[in-house]
Amino acid sequence: MRWSEIYLKTLRDKPAGAETPGHILLWRGGYISPVNSGIFTYNTFFVRSIQKFSNLVREELEKEQAHEILMPMVQPKNLWLETGRWDQFQELLMKMKNHSGQEFCLGPTHEEVVTSFVRSGVNSFRDMPFNIYQIQTKYRDEIRPRFGLLRAREFIMKDAYSFDPNEAGALKSYKKMFRAYSAIFQCLGVKFVVVQADTGVIGGKKSEEFHILADIGEDVLLVSENFAANREICPSLPSLSNPSENSKEEKEVEEISTPEVKTIEALARFLKCEQKELVKILFITFADKHSDEKSQAAVLCKGDDEINLLKAQKILNSQDVPALSSPEDIQKITGASPGSCGPVGLKIPVYVDHKLKNRKNFVTGANKNGVHLKNVNFKDFKVKDYGDFCYAKAGDPNPKNEKQTLKEYRGIEVGHLFYLSDAYSKQMNLKYLDEKGQSLFVEMGCYGLGITRTLQAIVEQSHDKDGIIWPPSVAPFSLHICLIDPDSAAVKKFLDQLTGELDNLGLDYFIDDRKERPGVKFKDADLLGLPLRLNMGERDLKDSQVEIIIRKTGTREKIKLTEVTSKISTLLKELEKYTDRV
Amino acid sequence: MRWSEIYLKTLRDKPAGAETPGHILLWRGGYISPVNSGIFTYNTFFVRSIQKFSNLVREELEKEQAHEILMPMVQPKNLWLETGRWDQFQELLMKMKNHSGQEFCLGPTHEEVVTSFVRSGVNSFRDMPFNIYQIQTKYRDEIRPRFGLLRAREFIMKDAYSFDPNEAGALKSYKKMFRAYSAIFQCLGVKFVVVQADTGVIGGKKSEEFHILADIGEDVLLVSENFAANREICPSLPSLSNPSENSKEEKEVEEISTPEVKTIEALARFLKCEQKELVKILFITFADKHSDEKSQAAVLCKGDDEINLLKAQKILNSQDVPALSSPEDIQKITGASPGSCGPVGLKIPVYVDHKLKNRKNFVTGANKNGVHLKNVNFKDFKVKDYGDFCYAKAGDPNPKNEKQTLKEYRGIEVGHLFYLSDAYSKQMNLKYLDEKGQSLFVEMGCYGLGITRTLQAIVEQSHDKDGIIWPPSVAPFSLHICLIDPDSAAVKKFLDQLTGELDNLGLDYFIDDRKERPGVKFKDADLLGLPLRLNMGERDLKDSQVEIIIRKTGTREKIKLTEVTSKISTLLKELEKYTDRV
Repeated sequence: MRWSEIYLKTLRDKPAGAETPGHILLWRGGYISPVNSGIFTYNTFFVRSIQKFSNLVREELEKEQAHEILMPMVQPKNLWLETGRWDQFQELLMKMKNHSGQEFCLGPTHEEVVTSFVRSGVNSFRDMPFNIYQIQTKYRDEIRPRFGLLRAREFIMKDAYSFDPNEAGALKSYKKMFRAYSAIFQCLGVKFVVVQADTGVIGGKKSEEFHILADIGEDVLLVSENFAANREICPSLPSLSNPSENSKEEKEVEEISTPEVKTIEALARFLKCEQKELVKILFITFADKHSDEKSQAAVLCKGDDEINLLKAQKILNSQDVPALSSPEDIQKITGASPGSCGPVGLKIPVYVDHKLKNRKNFVTGANKNGVHLKNVNFKDFKVKDYGDFCYAKAGDPNPKNEKQTLKEYRGIEVGHLFYLSDAYSKQMNLKYLDEKGQSLFVEMGCYGLGITRTLQAIVEQSHDKDGIIWPPSVAPFSLHICLIDPDSAAVKKFLDQLTGELDNLGLDYFIDDRKERPGVKFKDADLLGLPLRLNMGERDLKDSQVEIIIRKTGTREKIKLTEVTSKISTLLKELEKYTDRV
Repeated sequence: MRWSEIYLKTLRDKPAGAETPGHILLWRGGYISPVNSGIFTYNTFFVRSIQKFSNLVREELEKEQAHEILMPMVQPKNLWLETGRWDQFQELLMKMKNHSGQEFCLGPTHEEVVTSFVRSGVNSFRDMPFNIYQIQTKYRDEIRPRFGLLRAREFIMKDAYSFDPNEAGALKSYKKMFRAYSAIFQCLGVKFVVVQADTGVIGGKKSEEFHILADIGEDVLLVSENFAANREICPSLPSLSNPSENSKEEKEVEEISTPEVKTIEALARFLKCEQKELVKILFITFADKHSDEKSQAAVLCKGDDEINLLKAQKILNSQDVPALSSPEDIQKITGASPGSCGPVGLKIPVYVDHKLKNRKNFVTGANKNGVHLKNVNFKDFKVKDYGDFCYAKAGDPNPKNEKQTLKEYRGIEVGHLFYLSDAYSKQMNLKYLDEKGQSLFVEMGCYGLGITRTLQAIVEQSHDKDGIIWPPSVAPFSLHICLIDPDSAAVKKFLDQLTGELDNLGLDYFIDDRKERPGVKFKDADLLGLPLRLNMGERDLKDSQVEIIIRKTGTREKIKLTEVTSKISTLLKELEKYTDRV
């Protein structure tokens, strides 16, 4: 393909509204072009990357006997009523009415459609297992689309759905998808990590996420040997309390005047100690599963810990993720301002983070403004329960092996596996007859992989100040040929010979044949980020050589004309080998 | 791929709601599965056909330097306001409002988006020509979706758009697309025809349609040597009048009593002549371009001709396609019922189809119920104008060569080329600077090709009572292997050897490994319609042979095991050669 025959416009400067490095570079390189907030047109280069990646995904999924289908983007309301998600999805679901008043939505995911698709045909255990997937454009009416393709409204996803007669089968199907995903990201040649994850809105019993590591990633991942989890669900061991506390004797509570102390930082300064030696109190508002009425609870945790409301939701058996209570509510409960509160004398349930279990003689607020209590012990108030309430963090012990510590990474979630069990088959009445003639619910799994999201995530990880650095697996072309003297007969002659050889080898290349200064072409080549570049000019050709540049390392070398194709093949093979699962 | 590992359900009977043979067979074969009116899920077999066809389309377009991009399905209202099509498309445009009240539509076509995409980057004549296309899911809120994929709401289309600095360039781009389309349909191996067509809603200066021939086709195509046109726009020559009329003398008008004559058929019986020898009168209602008021006109035409209101629209300079006048309006104009009307004495303009130009002494209604006039001549009333008002039909002369006659075919429109000129670039202000520094509007073309529509059209043309007959070009697989004894060791052993050989040759195959009776498998094989079938059973294998069946001809033959792969290759090559452009 030649620049002169396509529509490709690069931008010199960061466009207004571009946020992350990946967003900026894809936009500047002309790969994506905004049509509306969170909606893009993809150019020829980007479509090639999408196709290369999609084909890689197809190849690995088909190896695991998953087979492609295609479901509609426009979905009738009645299917979404069967699962109750017509309302549950809230404003993320793009709804519409057609000319005759019938209601539809744009599919953000396809559990409803796929379940209805197989419902008429699955009758017996003999009809399973099978796994069907599609690569398709999806739509979510994101409230604040941002970071380009990382949180877009319209995007391309691969979504797969497995159907099995029982849990053992479903877990086998899940494992096959895990294997396929691992193979896909290994082939991609990027740094990635797989973590345990929350099952969230989709529901189900087991879930893992695939993340591409990048500084701008919104997810915090905690990783150690044989263990990795999203910070959202990573357990914290109770063993972090100072064991020396055990020996101390429990003293009597005493009031101390602390008129200036309104935060945990101020308390640490006042007591001349570190925050982690302190105890802090938090108030949360929640609705338990058996009543819709809002309740309040207090949680004591280490002064340097951060409460994880997802964990609190599980311990408190709350309907939704609880919220931190408002200062007004806290005032009502304690009679004091938030900075002066403590557990002693409270009438609401008081929970304690399990890392505090051995603490003695600690300081808390006195529920009087400007006053704290010292020598507080668990005998001085009623502990409703101990539990794991806080986020784990870097340096904490590996929950599977206390001798190791967790490391923290930032990642972009690009793949997600769910074992759904019978969550959807029950709601949509997808049943089959087993060997004994019993009618049972089908066991399902669903497996997402963001196609356009992954491509930008790769750029977030793999770029430098000059532009993108594509791994060969998804580069629009393997080779960028810069014609320094596009009108020279010698250049044309060698180009003809070379492209003939490249075609024979099945190697794809892009030719910059514009009448532009070499500097402009080099800058564009760096921005576009193809793995290898060849500078082809009259002067070098006179010496029977051309210059080859490796985008990733910047290494440049003059090579003999007779060695060009073999050199290109060798370099590409070396670049393809690179992979890095954390 | 094996039947046991996929989700594939065939139906024995015609499903309720299936209409045409293609619709019935694709549904019965499990290829398509309805989700809602005009909305379908495509199974693994159909996705493979879609991909084979899409890749064929890509290959031929790229040969003509058209390059793939991808535009969004969700499009903001503001772009559609620029061209006025937000309202023009009426209920076909699926509109929606998002959570914040912003309005969007689902793209039924992409002229607006593509023009806005290139608007920021096209500045100079040097930036052109280029041609960009996409293969994408589109949506039209059809009022009455029917015939499966032939008139679906959600469907897959290839749409291409060319951009040139001037008319000569635009016509060159148009020609390149014409060449690509011809190559695509030739490769497909189906009977097709290319006709001149109306430019319709899309607008523009030149237009041709590609049709796949099929009995159920809604379009009538008139074809002769070096000429083919959609009946909608096919010209009729004036030379069809009987030249012998010229010699007759014009007689005087005379009333005849015709109490029973209310139709042209009755008049032919009454006068004991053929309908084509008669003259009939039609009344039409229209609004001319300079006023919104409705006018009436009468048109005289041959008794066996059918008025073409599209032609009438052009001659009468009507805003929209005119309508036939109501019996009440006709009564008001003539004072008589429709069966007794004629031109003599009328106060509205009377037009005459040019085939009648030489007629003398003809019979028309007298504008009195139960009375006709004989010996009417053009001197007896005022002729506003002569023109080409009627549909051409089979047997009429070729408008390009009177010595040849037109043949009639029925076709399904699957491709459409439009030279748009500056229709959209003017509305959306897409300008460039030419060599002299003048600012000019870009010249555009647009080129549609229905991917899913073409696949069903192929089935409409190519099937028999037992099922589909896929041409190899778009068959989901080339070969259907029926295992008669799937558990037999001998069958398994030869299957392993054979599939190894087929893989090496790059030939794709489907294995029916179900534990079903052979009769069930054969019926399904015929229904699914892969080009070749191999019956592999223990008995034949003992004689070192298998049976091969050609789906298209039903020919069956026992072949030696050593010759299986070479036979398959040979037969597929023969089947691929078939093509037939009318």
